[in-house]
Amino acid sequence: MTNSSEWILDPDRVLPADPVLRPLAREIFGQVAQLPIVSMHGHVDVQVFLDNEAFANPAELLIIPDHYLVRMLVSQGYSHAQMGVPAKDGSVVETDPRLIWKRFCRNWKLFRGTPTRLWLEHELAVVFGASIRPSEQNADELYDFLQDALQTEAFRPRAILDRFNVEILATTDSAVSDLAAHRKLQDQTGGGNIVPTFRPDSLLHVNNSQWAREIAQLSGVSGIEVGDYGSFLAALRQRRRDFIAAGARATDHGHLSADTTPLAPAEAQRIFASALKGLVSDQEAAAFSANMLFEMARMSTEDGLVMQLHPGVLRNHSGTVQRLHGPDTGFDIPVRVEFTRALRPMLESFGNSKDFRFIAFTTDETVYSRELAPLAGAYPAMKLGAPWWFLDSPEQMRRFRESTVETAGFYNTSGFVDDTRALASIPARHDVSRRVDAGYLARLVAEGRLGLDEAVETAIDLSYNLPLQSYAHRQEQKP
Amino acid sequence: MTNSSEWILDPDRVLPADPVLRPLAREIFGQVAQLPIVSMHGHVDVQVFLDNEAFANPAELLIIPDHYLVRMLVSQGYSHAQMGVPAKDGSVVETDPRLIWKRFCRNWKLFRGTPTRLWLEHELAVVFGASIRPSEQNADELYDFLQDALQTEAFRPRAILDRFNVEILATTDSAVSDLAAHRKLQDQTGGGNIVPTFRPDSLLHVNNSQWAREIAQLSGVSGIEVGDYGSFLAALRQRRRDFIAAGARATDHGHLSADTTPLAPAEAQRIFASALKGLVSDQEAAAFSANMLFEMARMSTEDGLVMQLHPGVLRNHSGTVQRLHGPDTGFDIPVRVEFTRALRPMLESFGNSKDFRFIAFTTDETVYSRELAPLAGAYPAMKLGAPWWFLDSPEQMRRFRESTVETAGFYNTSGFVDDTRALASIPARHDVSRRVDAGYLARLVAEGRLGLDEAVETAIDLSYNLPLQSYAHRQEQKP
Amino acid sequence: MTNSSEWILDPDRVLPADPVLRPLAREIFGQVAQLPIVSMHGHVDVQVFLDNEAFANPAELLIIPDHYLVRMLVSQGYSHAQMGVPAKDGSVVETDPRLIWKRFCRNWKLFRGTPTRLWLEHELAVVFGASIRPSEQNADELYDFLQDALQTEAFRPRAILDRFNVEILATTDSAVSDLAAHRKLQDQTGGGNIVPTFRPDSLLHVNNSQWAREIAQLSGVSGIEVGDYGSFLAALRQRRRDFIAAGARATDHGHLSADTTPLAPAEAQRIFASALKGLVSDQEAAAFSANMLFEMARMSTEDGLVMQLHPGVLRNHSGTVQRLHGPDTGFDIPVRVEFTRALRPMLESFGNSKDFRFIAFTTDETVYSRELAPLAGAYPAMKLGAPWWFLDSPEQMRRFRESTVETAGFYNTSGFVDDTRALASIPARHDVSRRVDAGYLARLVAEGRLGLDEAVETAIDLSYNLPLQSYAHRQEQKP
Repeated sequence: MTNSSEWILDPDRVLPADPVLRPLAREIFGQVAQLPIVSMHGHVDVQVFLDNEAFANPAELLIIPDHYLVRMLVSQGYSHAQMGVPAKDGSVVETDPRLIWKRFCRNWKLFRGTPTRLWLEHELAVVFGASIRPSEQNADELYDFLQDALQTEAFRPRAILDRFNVEILATTDSAVSDLAAHRKLQDQTGGGNIVPTFRPDSLLHVNNSQWAREIAQLSGVSGIEVGDYGSFLAALRQRRRDFIAAGARATDHGHLSADTTPLAPAEAQRIFASALKGLVSDQEAAAFSANMLFEMARMSTEDGLVMQLHPGVLRNHSGTVQRLHGPDTGFDIPVRVEFTRALRPMLESFGNSKDFRFIAFTTDETVYSRELAPLAGAYPAMKLGAPWWFLDSPEQMRRFRESTVETAGFYNTSGFVDDTRALASIPARHDVSRRVDAGYLARLVAEGRLGLDEAVETAIDLSYNLPLQSYAHRQEQKP
Repeated sequence: MTNSSEWILDPDRVLPADPVLRPLAREIFGQVAQLPIVSMHGHVDVQVFLDNEAFANPAELLIIPDHYLVRMLVSQGYSHAQMGVPAKDGSVVETDPRLIWKRFCRNWKLFRGTPTRLWLEHELAVVFGASIRPSEQNADELYDFLQDALQTEAFRPRAILDRFNVEILATTDSAVSDLAAHRKLQDQTGGGNIVPTFRPDSLLHVNNSQWAREIAQLSGVSGIEVGDYGSFLAALRQRRRDFIAAGARATDHGHLSADTTPLAPAEAQRIFASALKGLVSDQEAAAFSANMLFEMARMSTEDGLVMQLHPGVLRNHSGTVQRLHGPDTGFDIPVRVEFTRALRPMLESFGNSKDFRFIAFTTDETVYSRELAPLAGAYPAMKLGAPWWFLDSPEQMRRFRESTVETAGFYNTSGFVDDTRALASIPARHDVSRRVDAGYLARLVAEGRLGLDEAVETAIDLSYNLPLQSYAHRQEQKP
Repeated sequence: MTNSSEWILDPDRVLPADPVLRPLAREIFGQVAQLPIVSMHGHVDVQVFLDNEAFANPAELLIIPDHYLVRMLVSQGYSHAQMGVPAKDGSVVETDPRLIWKRFCRNWKLFRGTPTRLWLEHELAVVFGASIRPSEQNADELYDFLQDALQTEAFRPRAILDRFNVEILATTDSAVSDLAAHRKLQDQTGGGNIVPTFRPDSLLHVNNSQWAREIAQLSGVSGIEVGDYGSFLAALRQRRRDFIAAGARATDHGHLSADTTPLAPAEAQRIFASALKGLVSDQEAAAFSANMLFEMARMSTEDGLVMQLHPGVLRNHSGTVQRLHGPDTGFDIPVRVEFTRALRPMLESFGNSKDFRFIAFTTDETVYSRELAPLAGAYPAMKLGAPWWFLDSPEQMRRFRESTVETAGFYNTSGFVDDTRALASIPARHDVSRRVDAGYLARLVAEGRLGLDEAVETAIDLSYNLPLQSYAHRQEQKP
């Protein structure tokens, strides 16, 4: 417990305050704090690691690309332009990184109680070794300190990753990526600790405005002329093979709904043909997207890629902001999501297969105890992903355990999965997760519900073994 | 910790019991306990303050008008009539206030664990200085004690308000009110610490049985003959100006759904004309209500009235009870509510405007983390209202913070807003809220997530500054 | 707090760890720990008690019939057949009980944090007096120990029940049961401490594949030739009288939805007639089911049977598993459920009647604060059932109190109701519930919200008096 003017990062932060729980939680956390990081769902561009260039300044590393952070300032009256977010129409945005940094520092109080604050404190104190906290008064001093650090070799992207003890990092890659950057990086580093993830969303949502262009790219990169539904499936299979060859462990799917209802092939072909002509209704597009989730599951049983689903977010709630600053700035807002009926077709067909692995994520916490835990606690193919996005925070992580463990146990969950394009925040996110789990396990021990040795073993599994096992790629077993 | 036969109001009540948290919470609460009360959403009739007459007896002050309290006794088998609630058909109801009081005292145990108990204990012990608790045995003694107090000047309505340290109190007023009582009261008191709130529900829901009568009243009071949609909007604008002139800060809207989809003016006119003929379907009425929320937002950007929305309650669930005892007795029950899609039209149009302030309330806690916090944490115009109605209680207030702060922060919330027609319960409600927030902030401090100085500053903001700022009226800036 | 290799069942297990709360919780729990068990919603077959034969082996008592336990092992890759669950098509399943037992012991870690673990620990340590915990190493030793115990008189079904201090146990019985086993048992034991419950689901869902056969059985057992809707209602009334004569206190209803909308008798007759011809749509069937809930409520007001509703579970999510192993193995998964609108027709008609008692259960915790607590806190006929099925666990029980007490109080709930076919787990389930309630009440005391004497009285009511009163049968008062 400190005053905010001091800058001592509490070594017991996020652990329960209760005097009975804290020593237990400290003991458990101590056993996992230094474990390697398994980061199987990242959004840092592989090019960053390939180029391996120094970050230009603190604003470009820590402020501008962080949606959580910018959004909070926008919610209090700053424009995206004032925070330096590039405009699509070329209109003027703030380009002085020091001014952007000051705007952030001046508003440090807005982040009280948020995970952004926890992550930033960890980044500043642990990653950079700063001894001053953001405030209007010390904004310049902190900026200069960080700027100096960024010019050193130790803060190049790959050096950061090594220092973070990242054992493996998965990027997210368009299904039409040529994967050249991944291949070059692997040539340069001789290793496979940065691997791609197959993300075909833009190909599966046929009412996406970029769809026709994406299909053309798919033809090009796959070498299969995509003219109908059959060749479309063939090209997707080919690309999945290419991704597996480049080290991919998983696919990732962002859909509005979790619907997995398959279509008769003739109906799928009919919609596909309509889409090629640009004549597809939203209803047809949704049916096709659902069908493609079913097909992705089928292909996963064939080629062993783990299937991840992230449904239930309405993208670009503010069309105005999106038109000005592009996707991912336009306020993505969760909606209610349904899994029990939506996943049934897929799980009935593949959920009992030993060749299938499916990991479900949600931003709607109401489905934890009602739908996701009962499903993951029944179907062998299904695992429950870690608290995602708006739920990637201490209170929510605690509620996730309190809502799922009793039905699904610990071992039907994926272990911790971060989800960020903010490179410097990766260890902070794993650190918070390990602390929250240590606190939850400490309570089970203190309430006589678990032995301390079991709690430690479980904590190690959640932090390290389960993410590795959940995303372990079964090498392609079928032609 | 006391036995129930003693009557010592625990000075640490509602603060966390944890020995690490309690001293912190006590320290934080100590800084806010005596702050003035800002009560921006009340339901006490302004006439009560204008008349400023003594309350007749304890039952008329504390029992009969308190829906929470009567409802609990009804749920256990008493009729509304037995509790003295007037009947619309003139049938006999209990008129002996002492007997009504005894029925309540005899059933004190029913209120264990409820906020009603916390409020009543505060009212009896702090407001009245009683030293005995309700029970069958002491019902008479307590009645006499209260009855004596009520005859004194100190318990006249305005004296109570002064003693409560209420800096400003907003009442809720029909949009067709002539505001005469407000004007008289301001003349008498020379002050503006009791202000009206513009509540146009009965005019906006065109299938309301009183609608035609209300429209006639609107014409009369506004001086604008309301014959079509255009004159309807003009009259509403006129009335909003009248309310602003009388000191109003805000509008308030009770709708079943949060839908804000605008209609083309011609379609709005068509429905309005049908409604005048009494020929409107429920679907048309709902579409018109949604359109009017959009128009209320537009008018707020023009005239600066803060817009409050309280959706998602199905009124008069029991038609039988409502027919006998009128609205507000017929069991209002929450239903599931949706905000993400429903608010989108309004927020896309006005959500980024500096001229708009929108405060959303809910009785459906499932939307906190999924919808409301992400929306309030993005749109500058939107703030998240305090836990409302069934959620205005310690456990729910705690969950509200645990579900919203991590995404929306503290500073996209309105601060505490009580919502009651039980005058004597106002300070108790603010007291409970300040205690719960102190407990939540104490935990953040103890878990190393916040400095104690920051926690105190935040507590003061939540208790006092944020309600004042959230409802600050930007003086009418546009013609 | 123990290591898992030791086997000391923590006497304070499940009580809060907080050093302020624990002694209070221990004091409260101490007052209820030994109270008799009232088990008003069980699924043990009455035949088990009539036969009163020794259980064959530990696997047949503890593993094979426990859906929670088998499901967890299936979710991790074991087949139902490997766990000894009989197959409907006669295909081979594991028949070696020792091997089944070993599979369970080897996977003891899967149950960390689950109620299954709490129940099994209680069964092994308290019911059997075992001093070793399940593990791969000690599987044989534990099996032999249990097997020896099962051969003794003390572990015959009726002896177990006596030892558990079960004051009354309700079984669940098909509405077409001849109740012969119940009558014989009462003759043998001379007592009414095992009573039937009237469960007519298969008769009320007219699209059930067994419906026509069930109707034929209804005719046979009731002595009323069921040929139309009128005779159907008459036969149901007759059967309810038969159940009351056999000691029944309640009916029980498993419906997908909570809809209680009545049909005009002519429409009900039309659907009934269609169903007899096998020509009924799913929509018609759902409307008929809803109508029958309304009629069941009406009959309850006539004959005094307490009405229980358990809605919102999609049965046999995996058709594959169900086809192989029959109902109750096919993964029943909850879906979202709605009560406010669904119950309105029934509550408007009967909810204020002193002759009606209705108890609602849910597996969807999102309705607690939004719908169920406000309804139970208003209608005198309605009580809120205990946390059910996936929610019958410490975290969920705590959340149930934290979400319902503030609106409905303690006294509009049913008290604890277990729901199991695992005979040996009955005392464990009541024990966990009493501990969780003691912890919740201890917090209210420590936070100055309740006197300790009140907390003890409330705990006794929740554990014993409320279940007895909630299911007390008003003897048939109308012809």
